Amino acid sequence: MENKVGEYHFTIRPFEVDFRNKLTLPLLINYLLNVAGYHADARGFGMEKINKDNRSWVLSRIAIELYKYPINNDEIMIQTWVENVMKMFTLRNFAIIGKNNEIYGYAKTVWAMIDTETRKPVSLTDEKINSFICDKECPIERTVKFATPQSESILCENFKVKYSDIDINKHLNSSKYVEYIVDAFSLQEFNDRDISRLETEFVEECLFGEEISIFKTEISKQEYLIDLKNNEGKTVCKSKVRFNTIVAREDS
Amino acid sequence: MENKVGEYHFTIRPFEVDFRNKLTLPLLINYLLNVAGYHADARGFGMEKINKDNRSWVLSRIAIELYKYPINNDEIMIQTWVENVMKMFTLRNFAIIGKNNEIYGYAKTVWAMIDTETRKPVSLTDEKINSFICDKECPIERTVKFATPQSESILCENFKVKYSDIDINKHLNSSKYVEYIVDAFSLQEFNDRDISRLETEFVEECLFGEEISIFKTEISKQEYLIDLKNNEGKTVCKSKVRFNTIVAREDS
Repeated sequence: MENKVGEYHFTIRPFEVDFRNKLTLPLLINYLLNVAGYHADARGFGMEKINKDNRSWVLSRIAIELYKYPINNDEIMIQTWVENVMKMFTLRNFAIIGKNNEIYGYAKTVWAMIDTETRKPVSLTDEKINSFICDKECPIERTVKFATPQSESILCENFKVKYSDIDINKHLNSSKYVEYIVDAFSLQEFNDRDISRLETEFVEECLFGEEISIFKTEISKQEYLIDLKNNEGKTVCKSKVRFNTIVAREDS
Repeated sequence: MENKVGEYHFTIRPFEVDFRNKLTLPLLINYLLNVAGYHADARGFGMEKINKDNRSWVLSRIAIELYKYPINNDEIMIQTWVENVMKMFTLRNFAIIGKNNEIYGYAKTVWAMIDTETRKPVSLTDEKINSFICDKECPIERTVKFATPQSESILCENFKVKYSDIDINKHLNSSKYVEYIVDAFSLQEFNDRDISRLETEFVEECLFGEEISIFKTEISKQEYLIDLKNNEGKTVCKSKVRFNTIVAREDS
């Protein structure tokens, strides 16, 4: 199992934490995407290798559950492994682990491999990734397609996709989608609670200069849907955000 | 000199680079601020120590010059040291260094120490930082107050200060000011050139929910002023941005 599970160690830096001293979710997602890349590159099915064949990995969905947020200076380990490979999708999981093997949380992701010219998904059946499937446990619910809400949604903000939002593929960076999602909430809403589960479906790639509107729907005081729509009214990203009451950290 | 100069090693991560594979300036500034904190904490005059006396360090100005941008996976070393301590300000310098001791660039910063209750600067005359002054060379021009431009400025964007913009002091994070500054330029403007010098003066602290407008003035095709103003029309941050034509990297 060892070579199937990648383990990566990090120390959380001062400017990665929010006003409460906790690692922000968009930056946690950057950590996850970075280790996904390190894991895949080291095993011969990463961007380094597949870009040469005009292929690229595209993140389609992510679900994260956190029981505890890393804080400044925390040493964390992130484990990642491939749960399964289907014809057009692969499932990659993550565990976020603190000192004394304390589990901070888990994440499940769904990826497609696309042809960089046609931008269409390609078959994964014969890809190298298949030899790294691993049955390690990831005990959180997988992402499910969620229906568009019936209740009223509020327009939070409009923004244009800018230089800092763009990744090496010239698309809106996955963690930046999530930055816009968490920014739909006020400081007040983070004061006595944490996001305990975030589910995001990346529907469309967004390009530089695109105008995006952020809509927020309250399902309950603990649960919200956040929709990002382009200026044709098409959903480019859907998200479900669940909050928990904060349990104080013993060491903080 | 050794204990006066701090040296910190990093490997640039995939999600820290822009669409050209180069480390973004706001994230470089995060690195600089992080090492400033590590250096000061290790020597007994960092936030850890002074916060207990209701004091805090506030970044007042920064000038950065880059001859070469770090790219993904580059191993860099950042050196930092205190150039001088005046009554109300201290000067801290940085060198950004790649493999084989190649100098990528330098930065000069000006800091004040404030009383966290009154938000007013306090005297540095008797502070511990005075014993770490060091005359290591930092061969770039220091920041100077720059006059408000006479030529016409263009309103680029309005934004509200959001959750992700806020640091542990509940103010707009210094690197986020710079993110808004670089985002005043299009991808096109980054295509065949780099920012070779950035100078920023942080005039006012911005709070959550404040509405900020970004104004851009072209001095020449290579040089721009970027002003951030609050909704009373008061300048909260001024910046001068100079571009250079890109010299291709031999190893990229």
